[in-house]
Amino acid sequence: MTATHAPAPALPDLPAAPAAEPRTGPALFGRVDGELAVGGVPAGLLVERSGGTPLFAYDRALVAERIAAVRAALPDAVALSYAVKANPMPALLHHMSTLVDGFDVASSGEMLAALDTGLGAAHTAFAGPGKTAAELRQAVAAGVLVELESATELARLRAAGDELGVRPRAALRVNPPFAVRGSGMRMGGGPQQFGVDAEQAPALLAELARGDVAFEGFHVFAGSQNLDAESICAAQRATVDLIADLAGHAPVRYLNLGGGFGIPYGPKDRPLDLRPIGENLAKLLDTTVRDRLPQARPVIELGRYLVGEAGVYLTRVVDRKQSRGTTYLVVDGGLHHQLAATGNLGRALRRNYPICVARSAPAQTPASDAADATEVVDVVGCLCTPLDLLGKDVTLPRAEPGDLVAVFQAGAYGLTASPTAFLGHPAPREVLV
Amino acid sequence: MTATHAPAPALPDLPAAPAAEPRTGPALFGRVDGELAVGGVPAGLLVERSGGTPLFAYDRALVAERIAAVRAALPDAVALSYAVKANPMPALLHHMSTLVDGFDVASSGEMLAALDTGLGAAHTAFAGPGKTAAELRQAVAAGVLVELESATELARLRAAGDELGVRPRAALRVNPPFAVRGSGMRMGGGPQQFGVDAEQAPALLAELARGDVAFEGFHVFAGSQNLDAESICAAQRATVDLIADLAGHAPVRYLNLGGGFGIPYGPKDRPLDLRPIGENLAKLLDTTVRDRLPQARPVIELGRYLVGEAGVYLTRVVDRKQSRGTTYLVVDGGLHHQLAATGNLGRALRRNYPICVARSAPAQTPASDAADATEVVDVVGCLCTPLDLLGKDVTLPRAEPGDLVAVFQAGAYGLTASPTAFLGHPAPREVLV
Repeated sequence: MTATHAPAPALPDLPAAPAAEPRTGPALFGRVDGELAVGGVPAGLLVERSGGTPLFAYDRALVAERIAAVRAALPDAVALSYAVKANPMPALLHHMSTLVDGFDVASSGEMLAALDTGLGAAHTAFAGPGKTAAELRQAVAAGVLVELESATELARLRAAGDELGVRPRAALRVNPPFAVRGSGMRMGGGPQQFGVDAEQAPALLAELARGDVAFEGFHVFAGSQNLDAESICAAQRATVDLIADLAGHAPVRYLNLGGGFGIPYGPKDRPLDLRPIGENLAKLLDTTVRDRLPQARPVIELGRYLVGEAGVYLTRVVDRKQSRGTTYLVVDGGLHHQLAATGNLGRALRRNYPICVARSAPAQTPASDAADATEVVDVVGCLCTPLDLLGKDVTLPRAEPGDLVAVFQAGAYGLTASPTAFLGHPAPREVLV
Repeated sequence: MTATHAPAPALPDLPAAPAAEPRTGPALFGRVDGELAVGGVPAGLLVERSGGTPLFAYDRALVAERIAAVRAALPDAVALSYAVKANPMPALLHHMSTLVDGFDVASSGEMLAALDTGLGAAHTAFAGPGKTAAELRQAVAAGVLVELESATELARLRAAGDELGVRPRAALRVNPPFAVRGSGMRMGGGPQQFGVDAEQAPALLAELARGDVAFEGFHVFAGSQNLDAESICAAQRATVDLIADLAGHAPVRYLNLGGGFGIPYGPKDRPLDLRPIGENLAKLLDTTVRDRLPQARPVIELGRYLVGEAGVYLTRVVDRKQSRGTTYLVVDGGLHHQLAATGNLGRALRRNYPICVARSAPAQTPASDAADATEVVDVVGCLCTPLDLLGKDVTLPRAEPGDLVAVFQAGAYGLTASPTAFLGHPAPREVLV
């Protein structure tokens, strides 16, 4: 993520025209002749083109549409960064590189994938605890912005800069004194492995003032997967106040306010309302930022929110079984590809992701009135473990072996967040349509 | 898994000499000059030999010792099978192939790895829901025993046999009408995606009696990770009774009673007592099996119990941080390699796996009295997510960056059950010592 050297542009008193409410969840995808379509391509053809199931399919237009909605809702002066860890598929990163202002990476592997897009080191920031000396050396050699998580990292960064004859670029990641209500995962407040406590920041800033490292600003990421706009606004206000208090030591150009925008996974989840977030940022730009951080360009860093709803996980029904009153659809995918959808990543209680029959075999297409008939089934994966449960008591049209079943909200923290080698099944396919 | 064609050998009224209680957990591993050793090799040297951390290290002698303990406790007439999904590392499979009677595989990938050892198709059984036509064709071509999970699979098996001109070998996996108390994961009783309900078995057995498929017997797997010997014994008794009731249709030679032997993960877990299980099996052999299943050789199928405690996950401390009263050790591994140890696979509540400082850097080795000083720390991985927690409030000797930290009980469901691509870090190394 680069920082603007010019002052933030003048802003209107009110935010720009409010964005249209973005569509969300399964409603994002169309149907062609009754078949789920991704990027306008019917699921059956897409599977054939890709060589089979299981298949992660991402819709490039939906990604662009989501980013446009964010841009429309947020002030122009706010930069938008993509958190690569949400989905590092190379083709998707290249698409992203034409749509966002920067990349946030969490490993040297992600850094290299980001740089391969051509967006450039000036627009790339590297955060994450436990950065090794080797990783920091790579980061300095590349010229990316390093978000320091500890004094140890600063010492390593300096050593790398000395050895390479390159002045490292750094920001300080701060663990704020506050938490954010409503986050799916808390990443700030109280003790944390992330960043340095706000109380410890002045000492590290004094170190940074020696000048051998180019200090550019701050990063605060208080929580993720939040659907409550007001909580996000409150965190952004508190973050800007905190950074303004810390900023006496050096001009702040980089002001990463984190992200945390959530997406709905279950039927009770309401989509996040972007409008109050945009209004809140506009107000902050026009007050605290203008008055106390005049050189800063705020950055909002989003991963899941930009790509999570643009992806579906397509599987094929391999078996249909009855067992003591329960109907099971056994599909050829499962937790080895979509761990989070089985409730085994970061959730104490599992709940179904949205799921549908994407395509029924033509020979089995029932007559029109039977087409409305549904049944309650459990959708399970092909792994020999009871953990492999994709849908519990799901109401679906009757499906048979050969039919395609889609699990939605599969664009983020899907394939790369899953144990693909578990039980030795083939790797799934991935396609950007 | 092959079946013996001869009747089970005559058995003594009492089991063979009781086995020594197997050692368990961290106590299995020695120290060399204060350093944790795996297979007699100090952790530091092992890491250097392997090219670095993170490293999964498995001790071949401990695997052999555990298998010997099981053999000693169980009647000679009981066959011992290894569930490859617990750990499919090729070198480990080759080691296993010299120690066990057969392999249980859960995918065509695992099947091929098992056959590569040379143990042979006669000793390999393929179980798991959702076996595709392509997988079943591979299984028939290989000549392994297919454990049928549904009528659909039988139809596919027949088709493969017809097409290939090979008579398929089959057993029937049965979902019993009972569950097992104390299992970490229930895999039998009530509705299940595994096997066919016992009530449905007679109809499928009538189908199998047509003779185009070689029917060899049954598989019942009621639960896994059980530390209560009496529950396991009760399940084995109920299983033998169930199979004897079902066996009127064909002679039963293959009698897979499942496994489910657990290992201790937390301090409150007591190691499983093998002796009552051996006594129970001896009694079953001398009664129900002799009287009602005279051609059957019972098989016990174990994965985790044979290898889980023989492995350690070695990581290096990258950073040491203080945050609001908590000391964090940030290591270069994490949930991307050892998901289960972070509580994110099959557990509603996380608990620490046993963990230790495997090696302290020589320069920092404290004087003898200070060497006893410990502190309470959180051990976290290097992923930029709060889920990456390997040890919460662990009491350890003081550790510094560069020191090695070991997480025990890492031999089963570790590397292959983890999302290795998550956040783009390098793959860990694996070594069998």
